[in-house]
Amino acid sequence: MPTISQKGLSMPESPIRKLVPFAEEAKKRGIKVIHLNIGQPDIKTPKVALDAVKNNTLEVLEYSRTEGSEEYREKLAKYYAKYDIHVSASEIIITTGGSEALAFVMGSIMDNDDEIIIPEPFYANYNGFATAAGVKVVPVVSKIENNFALPPIEEFEKLITPKTKAILICNPGNPTGYLYSKEEIEKLAVIAKKHNLFLVADEVYREFTYEGKEHYSVLQVEGLEENAIVVDSVSKRYSMCGARIGCLVSKNKEVIKTAMKFAQARLSPPTLAQIASEAALETPQSYFDDVKVEYVSRRNLLISELEKIKDLKVAKPQGAFYCIAELPIADADHFAQWLLDSFELNGETVMVAPAAGFYATEGLGKNQIRIAYVLDKESITRAVQILKTALEVYKG
Amino acid sequence: MPTISQKGLSMPESPIRKLVPFAEEAKKRGIKVIHLNIGQPDIKTPKVALDAVKNNTLEVLEYSRTEGSEEYREKLAKYYAKYDIHVSASEIIITTGGSEALAFVMGSIMDNDDEIIIPEPFYANYNGFATAAGVKVVPVVSKIENNFALPPIEEFEKLITPKTKAILICNPGNPTGYLYSKEEIEKLAVIAKKHNLFLVADEVYREFTYEGKEHYSVLQVEGLEENAIVVDSVSKRYSMCGARIGCLVSKNKEVIKTAMKFAQARLSPPTLAQIASEAALETPQSYFDDVKVEYVSRRNLLISELEKIKDLKVAKPQGAFYCIAELPIADADHFAQWLLDSFELNGETVMVAPAAGFYATEGLGKNQIRIAYVLDKESITRAVQILKTALEVYKG
Ligand SMILES: Cc1ncc(COP(=O)(O)O)c(C=O)c1O
Ligand SMILES: Cc1ncc(COP(=O)(O)O)c(C=O)c1O
Repeated sequence: MPTISQKGLSMPESPIRKLVPFAEEAKKRGIKVIHLNIGQPDIKTPKVALDAVKNNTLEVLEYSRTEGSEEYREKLAKYYAKYDIHVSASEIIITTGGSEALAFVMGSIMDNDDEIIIPEPFYANYNGFATAAGVKVVPVVSKIENNFALPPIEEFEKLITPKTKAILICNPGNPTGYLYSKEEIEKLAVIAKKHNLFLVADEVYREFTYEGKEHYSVLQVEGLEENAIVVDSVSKRYSMCGARIGCLVSKNKEVIKTAMKFAQARLSPPTLAQIASEAALETPQSYFDDVKVEYVSRRNLLISELEKIKDLKVAKPQGAFYCIAELPIADADHFAQWLLDSFELNGETVMVAPAAGFYATEGLGKNQIRIAYVLDKESITRAVQILKTALEVYKG
Repeated sequence: MPTISQKGLSMPESPIRKLVPFAEEAKKRGIKVIHLNIGQPDIKTPKVALDAVKNNTLEVLEYSRTEGSEEYREKLAKYYAKYDIHVSASEIIITTGGSEALAFVMGSIMDNDDEIIIPEPFYANYNGFATAAGVKVVPVVSKIENNFALPPIEEFEKLITPKTKAILICNPGNPTGYLYSKEEIEKLAVIAKKHNLFLVADEVYREFTYEGKEHYSVLQVEGLEENAIVVDSVSKRYSMCGARIGCLVSKNKEVIKTAMKFAQARLSPPTLAQIASEAALETPQSYFDDVKVEYVSRRNLLISELEKIKDLKVAKPQGAFYCIAELPIADADHFAQWLLDSFELNGETVMVAPAAGFYATEGLGKNQIRIAYVLDKESITRAVQILKTALEVYKG
């Protein structure tokens, strides 16, 4: 029999994958599962985006340009200008989700066995893209005690070797909800320049910042033009994850030229979804204002309810729509499965994402879970109540 | 300055990329360029597919399942059954174009420096996916004199090393138009089994077979279940290249399990395009009958016109919508550029794809071009007339 690759064997599985059958079993037993584990927003997609697709008059659904439609990229450049990010259409490549932009970045800047430093906990799929590209993820620990702020810059420098090619941050962070300050980004910029590293920022949650805090992009740092690469996406911004449209942005011409070669191999990003994404740029500001108000009140509710749970630690998120909670138990993997196969409160239970899958360092995050607050407040209240009761039963 | 990767440097560019600026220049000079270089069909997308998208009632454009929607895969399994290919929904992973299926296959079955044998000339982007995966393409030459039939099986066996993991064929072939016979597929199956290799078949042109010839899939070979992998796509079948929907099909459970890990990292294939693709399965047979009649008459016209050109050799295609022509000149690259920057007939010229980019062996195909017959008959007639006159001028 032919055998699959070592690379394939070492590709990680999604941290919640093994819980899925247990959730399905619970549902079969008639138990309602509240999903705190999912990053798919429940917010409606802007009508203007959906309508554009409905009203399209294409007769042949053709390939778009490899780099994405000219009009869309021109408009995107204007969108960025509103955030004080000054780029031209030629510095943007439209990708199939932020996911594909991550894959193109890995391939364009790193060879087999090269290293990329990433503050952990981090978006688990970075592991998958790194493994696929043959690249080694080198984690630097950020701590719940500090709200998952940037680790001391010396910790990064200690990890830099001749094989280090880049630092990757997620800002605001999934799963941490941490928003890097301008000062933190500038510190990273200094070491990136000093060591000739790329500074890659996954900014797919740019719009989701709270308490009046402003997002600061790596593309805003003066003098960092050759080092800065941004990964972006319409998925969360417009609650249109299924469109599969993202982009890669850089002022470094070699990066764009190289990423374009990866893009050419796969021909083009999806055409219908580009129509939706271009129209989405017309979404009125009131949509975002409403969404922000909604997320802030969900967050406030979630955090204040969680804080009532004895011995539970939680980092208050300033961005995105996730938070990490540290539970007074030893093994969140086991607890998460137990929630699904052995617990219920009035016919309901919750599904959470064990946080160990967001850490690269073996053993870290074992008592932590990630909670996504992409569901209505009533469900949040009930979910935390379930969690609280469950912890009492589980420990007892 | 940070540097890009060796892999990025060695990623190939599309064979026609360097001609594009010359075509743009020609257009600026007011010259009409007839494109014989493009694989984007001009046929209309089935209305049923476009309508399904227009009539969708989604309010949140959500991620689909990683492996693609259940309903769509169930229906696809039925579609395959019509071609005597018997697979279940769980043996299908929906991908973002056949392109992504190719990338998943490379990653799932091959490690860095592993080898894949491919009859040349072949679809040029195989090079890109192989380079991205760190895989070595080992070509086996097929010849215009034999219509690009399967090279003798001994030629394959000579090339097998401990690093060989797979044989990849494109059936019907781009750029050759060759349709492998049942006997040829069975010969390949024998060596795949003998040497424990995967036999990967890119069957994105399955429907495009002429002269009553039938397509025979690697998935139809009895006993080849563990070795056979099919790459498929809606792009050409329904003239909906811009949808970006394809799939990977295999009865080998390890292959599916492994490809699923690559698929999970990128979350899901596009949702709107899956709606279109699912509806496209309802396309009436008359659509395909009409399309086939159209392509056959284009092909007949193209070949008979080309055969009138002195010293030109052409392989008669039995499938897909490409053919390779060998010209009585030394350097088709130079000729193709010259057509754009120095030639015109009544204000028109043609753009062709030099065939060298479809060969992995240095020096092969230098006097060949690929012609795609995805344009109307009047244009085909004029294009061949231009080619004929141009050759006379060029050689003179
Ligand atoms: C941090 C982060 N980056 C990238 C992505 C990829 O998203 P997409 O491919 O839908 O743009 C996600 C999705 O959850 C994410 O959370
Ligand atoms: C032989 C072959 N395979 C695969 C593809 C990829 O097509 P897509 O990604 O649009 O499915 C093409 C496109 O031209 C092709 O010709």
